[in-house]
Amino acid sequence: MKKITIGAVLFSLMFTGLNAQSLKSPDGKFEMNFQLKSGVPYYNLKYNGGIVVEDSKLGLRLLKDGDIQFASEIENKNNEGKNLDYGFEKTAEKRDSKNETWQPVLGEKKNYINNYNELAVTLNQKENDRSIIVKFRLFNDGLGFRYEFPQQKNLNYFIIKEEDSEIDLPTDMKAWWLAGDYDTEEYVTQTSKLSEIPAKWPTSYEGNASQNLVKNGVQMPLMMKKEGTNPLYVNIAEAAVIDYPAANLELDATNFKFKTHLTPDAQGAKGYIQTPSVTPWRTIIVSPKAEEVLDSKMLFNLNEPTKYKDTSWIHPTKYMGVWWEMIIGKSQWAYSTADNVHIGKTDFSKLTPNGKHAANNTKVKEYIDFAAANGFQGLLIEGWNIGWEDWFGHSKEFVFDFITPYPDFDIKMLNDYAHSKGIKLIMHHETSGSASNYERWADKAFQLMNKYGYDAVKTGYVGNIIPRGEHHYSQWTINHYRRIIEKAAEYKIMVNSHESVRPSGESRTYPNWIAAEAARGTEFEAFAGNNPDHQTILPFTRWMGGPMDYTPGIFQTKLDYYFPGDNRFVKTTLAKQLALYVVMYQPLQMAADLPENYAKHMDAFQFIKDVAADWDDTKILSAEPGDYIHTARKAKGTDNWFVGGITDENARDFTVDFSFLDKGRKYEATIYEDGKNADYINNPQSYHIYKKTIDSKTKLPVHLVRSGGYAISVKPVK
Amino acid sequence: MKKITIGAVLFSLMFTGLNAQSLKSPDGKFEMNFQLKSGVPYYNLKYNGGIVVEDSKLGLRLLKDGDIQFASEIENKNNEGKNLDYGFEKTAEKRDSKNETWQPVLGEKKNYINNYNELAVTLNQKENDRSIIVKFRLFNDGLGFRYEFPQQKNLNYFIIKEEDSEIDLPTDMKAWWLAGDYDTEEYVTQTSKLSEIPAKWPTSYEGNASQNLVKNGVQMPLMMKKEGTNPLYVNIAEAAVIDYPAANLELDATNFKFKTHLTPDAQGAKGYIQTPSVTPWRTIIVSPKAEEVLDSKMLFNLNEPTKYKDTSWIHPTKYMGVWWEMIIGKSQWAYSTADNVHIGKTDFSKLTPNGKHAANNTKVKEYIDFAAANGFQGLLIEGWNIGWEDWFGHSKEFVFDFITPYPDFDIKMLNDYAHSKGIKLIMHHETSGSASNYERWADKAFQLMNKYGYDAVKTGYVGNIIPRGEHHYSQWTINHYRRIIEKAAEYKIMVNSHESVRPSGESRTYPNWIAAEAARGTEFEAFAGNNPDHQTILPFTRWMGGPMDYTPGIFQTKLDYYFPGDNRFVKTTLAKQLALYVVMYQPLQMAADLPENYAKHMDAFQFIKDVAADWDDTKILSAEPGDYIHTARKAKGTDNWFVGGITDENARDFTVDFSFLDKGRKYEATIYEDGKNADYINNPQSYHIYKKTIDSKTKLPVHLVRSGGYAISVKPVK
Repeated sequence: MKKITIGAVLFSLMFTGLNAQSLKSPDGKFEMNFQLKSGVPYYNLKYNGGIVVEDSKLGLRLLKDGDIQFASEIENKNNEGKNLDYGFEKTAEKRDSKNETWQPVLGEKKNYINNYNELAVTLNQKENDRSIIVKFRLFNDGLGFRYEFPQQKNLNYFIIKEEDSEIDLPTDMKAWWLAGDYDTEEYVTQTSKLSEIPAKWPTSYEGNASQNLVKNGVQMPLMMKKEGTNPLYVNIAEAAVIDYPAANLELDATNFKFKTHLTPDAQGAKGYIQTPSVTPWRTIIVSPKAEEVLDSKMLFNLNEPTKYKDTSWIHPTKYMGVWWEMIIGKSQWAYSTADNVHIGKTDFSKLTPNGKHAANNTKVKEYIDFAAANGFQGLLIEGWNIGWEDWFGHSKEFVFDFITPYPDFDIKMLNDYAHSKGIKLIMHHETSGSASNYERWADKAFQLMNKYGYDAVKTGYVGNIIPRGEHHYSQWTINHYRRIIEKAAEYKIMVNSHESVRPSGESRTYPNWIAAEAARGTEFEAFAGNNPDHQTILPFTRWMGGPMDYTPGIFQTKLDYYFPGDNRFVKTTLAKQLALYVVMYQPLQMAADLPENYAKHMDAFQFIKDVAADWDDTKILSAEPGDYIHTARKAKGTDNWFVGGITDENARDFTVDFSFLDKGRKYEATIYEDGKNADYINNPQSYHIYKKTIDSKTKLPVHLVRSGGYAISVKPVK
Repeated sequence: MKKITIGAVLFSLMFTGLNAQSLKSPDGKFEMNFQLKSGVPYYNLKYNGGIVVEDSKLGLRLLKDGDIQFASEIENKNNEGKNLDYGFEKTAEKRDSKNETWQPVLGEKKNYINNYNELAVTLNQKENDRSIIVKFRLFNDGLGFRYEFPQQKNLNYFIIKEEDSEIDLPTDMKAWWLAGDYDTEEYVTQTSKLSEIPAKWPTSYEGNASQNLVKNGVQMPLMMKKEGTNPLYVNIAEAAVIDYPAANLELDATNFKFKTHLTPDAQGAKGYIQTPSVTPWRTIIVSPKAEEVLDSKMLFNLNEPTKYKDTSWIHPTKYMGVWWEMIIGKSQWAYSTADNVHIGKTDFSKLTPNGKHAANNTKVKEYIDFAAANGFQGLLIEGWNIGWEDWFGHSKEFVFDFITPYPDFDIKMLNDYAHSKGIKLIMHHETSGSASNYERWADKAFQLMNKYGYDAVKTGYVGNIIPRGEHHYSQWTINHYRRIIEKAAEYKIMVNSHESVRPSGESRTYPNWIAAEAARGTEFEAFAGNNPDHQTILPFTRWMGGPMDYTPGIFQTKLDYYFPGDNRFVKTTLAKQLALYVVMYQPLQMAADLPENYAKHMDAFQFIKDVAADWDDTKILSAEPGDYIHTARKAKGTDNWFVGGITDENARDFTVDFSFLDKGRKYEATIYEDGKNADYINNPQSYHIYKKTIDSKTKLPVHLVRSGGYAISVKPVK
């Protein structure tokens, strides 16, 4: 709560004046008010009559206006009079509304509803004779707004110093937050009051292969909750981050006020703009129910429909991978014992093999056999190409060529073998952050994929970005990701990008961007570890803008199985691993463990074999960030449902209400639940599987042990 | 002269100790001495027993040694103990020598002689258990040295903070210098004593489209003269700048001491090194005769022989261009009146033509007709492709696509038409500094060239480099130029690069890098102007490492011819313009003026039609930097000679001694000299042409008016 000053009271009075514009959501529950105060634009947001966002300032500061000729430094100190944050007059107001249903190529539901009322206010800055538009879209689940820069005589090119869009909350809230950074989201989510963030911030992050922290900043999507008798959930994010840097949020923890903090480039500039242009949308999703936040499709609705004419080649895939054994340290990506290699010069066939190279013909064929026998469509193979000997930590620009296999990887034979068994190999393009190098090789790399029949690639950006000084979230790199996605589309290739920026609904426009990583995935269980509440938070944060390649399915959660005395372990029960396939939407769904571990638990593995990766419908049965999520989904094109539930470090009971099933129809449910004595630390592999005939009236009690879960496969009785 | 201190005396005594290595040039005139003083490497250089370079320190400081993992900043403050500039012991010494003759693909002579004695000293830094090699090559024209970094356990990757190679001169000298910069050499050459440089430096430069000045720094090649009774000319440069930034020189003007100052990248790093690796050569050319400096091929000798198997497609070209009319402002590169266009989105056929677009079908055909009728092989056309409306000054990354012609440029028709007349069109790829964009389009651009029969491209880098923060001389950009040259070679395309770094002999290795600009060319006559001494200096500086596309041949030197009242003018006589074709070696030689201007002076134009662009022999008859140059060259594969002489702002008389001609053979000489009343300001187009039979005994007097010159075409009488 802020101190009320006389000034603030006066402003509030002014706000009701003639100069204000009001916008309501289609259901009438939200109200957004826009007003110029002394030439400065402000907006606020109300939900059911209560203030959700107080009067909050809008505007941008510029480094340069117009040309940057004959300048060796981009900042023009005399440029302040050119900022786009003052001296505005409203010159036009345009209203619009939409209520449409659209079909995502891959999605959680068959139909996404896009229903909003729109207000576009044209603001003229008289001093510089130029205009911008602030566009608001008010949905039944909250607000989106952005700036638009029409092409005009006095507004053609400019460089952003900062976008100062504010979101001023009326009160302290509980927040699930990540330390702000320009390069990585791979931090542990912190849970605290907003007011506690400055104190907690200094210990909220660990080292990362590439990191550039934003002091006291937090990342988006940011999930918050106003606690108390009338709880309200608020999620702040951005949508359609195209040709613009991604943002962190700066927090004024005394006033509970957020401000955008864009990612700079190598010179500190935060966006080179050529009009006509638009910014990303700033989004505020609001609901008294956490489940409705998870159900929001606002970020996708605020992206443009795809321009791809043919999307038939984009499909869900369940896959295995020659991967986890490298992550845990049992095998290696590199082929040889060398530690300094030169692509194009080193003869890898003459190097001494290290004996631990996983991507070899024999092992890959074994994986193909297992994946094919169990109905998978894809097999990811990492470490197939030359360069892994010194791929990381040296800022090598020419680190990989993406086309030359190691001597023990017969690319033609293995693809032919895979295809003969109904499996497609999944390509891997680790860039080591050297995006400029990847762009140089992309055509040849995709041509190689077409030649051998790969139709999906996992890309990776571990380490600092090259061009040096750029960041994983800076405008140049954001454009790089898009260029790769678009080029991949030319070759009909699906992309799963790791260590890239988190998606903000862009898969609506670029549906071959089938997934991204951009948070701590399962791999971190083998690094610094994920907390038991991790998976109950991610769907409220990382997932809001698009699927994450979380790579669940670890059955052998204790790594001392491989390395006696090793105390690393995956902090879930086996049953919770199954539940993740439902709770976490991912059309490119991995079964990440080794075949030998699945072979020991074929009864539990059956759920992974059965579960769908793309859906006609989704019901969030119950959810609370950081505590639990229970989700039911209907498999694409079938009447089969899958239900999953997970809990944090606390054991919980839950009753699954099957009222979402067709009335009067009988279903056979197969329940995979934690064993009676299961425990994520002491007894993670204890599970219990049973079958039960159910219908829409069934209320099924389930018990989740601490960091446990359950998965249910539901099929109509024929 | 420095103050002699007791310490210096002691050092000198030590220098003669057992720890010193001495190296002599093949002719015995030069002596180089290497010594470790308290673990720090020093060298000196003597010529005919006199000190040319005093004991000068060698070494490098590093930003990072080895890995840069988990670091968001590249500089490791605790890294000083890892510098490569102290604590060395000599562990090996290897001597070698070479006396070879090699043939440049294109050159000033048929044979270049590469004759040197070599000393390679291996230095071990015990504290860090690693070794580097300092390699010296002593030629009959001076010294080259470089650092070599063998691959070894403790030296695999490092980042250079600075290379501190010193060149410590014993005395003040006259110097012809350019203000130090990371991005441009397009400054007026200053002439002063070294000691006067700090005072003159602040007024030594003008604005440039891209500039980043190195305070009190000067550029290389740097020409100097020890004046007095025993004059000595010293030229400091670098050779083989490959995968390394180009350097400026920092001057300690009190002690007449230079130190390398490398060009940083966007983060301030001055070279990412992976061993094995070598630095560029630091070169010191020394002679009592200015002519011998001009004759030195040391920079080429220090580059590697070409690895191209086939060089038959590389050829000299005389060309005209749709160019000068845009430079002076009579025509435009852009097609339309638009000032904000988007490649890939804007429909250029719908824009309003500006009526001044030079690269249109009608005009280009006229140029083709004229060039073909006068025996040229090529025609450059600038402004043929979309994007020129807003190409400059906006740091637009996607500024050109290099493949889409303007609506009024029929690329197929014009190439067919040119080919039917024996002309090849020369492609133009202006990047606007957006090197990352050019790399993306290079394959498609070169494929287009192959399709339509272009075999040469003029590239351009006007404006700040993208990736933003990189410089025209930084390691990334140096590598970019080489990537483009190598890619062009794959398509059998010759490259003439403008606003790129000055060449340092690399055309030996990459002979399709046929020319570069990298200094103030003729175009500056239409901008801020070139001084009358300009062309008498450039061959001693810019030209030492490779040909410059100077674009001579302006007959209509006064621009008020086009624009009444315009006081811009080319500061030479017409006869001097002819002389430049001989004085300035350039295998891609332009006749830069408009056809209409040549048509008015067909008698003088005959020299340009006759003159060769590639040579079997070259004699520097007489030269003094900043004053005059007289050069004779023998045309490739013929017995024809061409002689040219130019002077600065002073009129001069000279006697051409034809003793280089075959004895006893008669030749017909056609002499193109300044008219009696010619004057570069008041009467530039006055010239006198006459013929004379000559032989090897002929001594021909010529008079050069101020900023005048003469050209002589010499053919054997049959």
